[in-house]
Amino acid sequence: MRACDLLATFPTVTADTPVIEAARLLAGQDLPGLIVVDERGLPVSILPGTQVLRLAVPGYCLDDPALARVVDEKHADAFASSLASRTVRQALPPERRELPVTDPDATVLELAALMARTHSPLVAVVEQGRLLGAVTLQALLDRVLAA
Amino acid sequence: MRACDLLATFPTVTADTPVIEAARLLAGQDLPGLIVVDERGLPVSILPGTQVLRLAVPGYCLDDPALARVVDEKHADAFASSLASRTVRQALPPERRELPVTDPDATVLELAALMARTHSPLVAVVEQGRLLGAVTLQALLDRVLAA
Repeated sequence: MRACDLLATFPTVTADTPVIEAARLLAGQDLPGLIVVDERGLPVSILPGTQVLRLAVPGYCLDDPALARVVDEKHADAFASSLASRTVRQALPPERRELPVTDPDATVLELAALMARTHSPLVAVVEQGRLLGAVTLQALLDRVLAA
Repeated sequence: MRACDLLATFPTVTADTPVIEAARLLAGQDLPGLIVVDERGLPVSILPGTQVLRLAVPGYCLDDPALARVVDEKHADAFASSLASRTVRQALPPERRELPVTDPDATVLELAALMARTHSPLVAVVEQGRLLGAVTLQALLDRVLAA
């Protein structure tokens, strides 16, 4: 069993996609994360859902849970409105890290090692400069446990 | 909107649960992670799915992607068999970190800040020494984006 047997097409966003659209995509399709592609359609980042959410949370609430607590319910409910003015670019990590990207020949062991090492429930599969799709942790576990 | 409006019951495991059972629970119910509880039923850890998978991968494959590549397909397919002999205890992080646990009064802003800060798509909700359930990133996004 190899990545080509497990992959499925997966929606992509670009650095210019508004965060609100990215959040709708995550929620609407129950995705574990998002593949951010460049103008050639190749992955430049794989964003876990929690890091998309991060953009909607004011910095003082990230640093100090006690400060998030003092914001009343009405204002807390409105926090998502700040998503509208931001783009995915602002959610990208500043440093270059290993990307969970592999080729269609990767075995389930390689996929599992890549997910575990990069803490990503999602691996993008690329062949000859083209994004073929992605393998999710769910797809991998379903197949490995059924085998 | 508060945690009590968003929470749903959520399956739990203990440190003694075999990893293969934990993996089946993750896969079978499409969970973003697992709540590990102690003998009182209170959360001691929230494990993302990728860290459950980590236990099934030999250390040399985690450290060096090239070594995962040399394992042939047949042996790679069998990697999940190593899950059978291990328990969740071995997947728990060694250091004490902030747990994504809150109370039923937490606002959506507090929940979002907690998920973003702890990189957890899952927050356990506890009241008076009792686990009430969990709020997932999906549930949070669904409600916040619909509002």
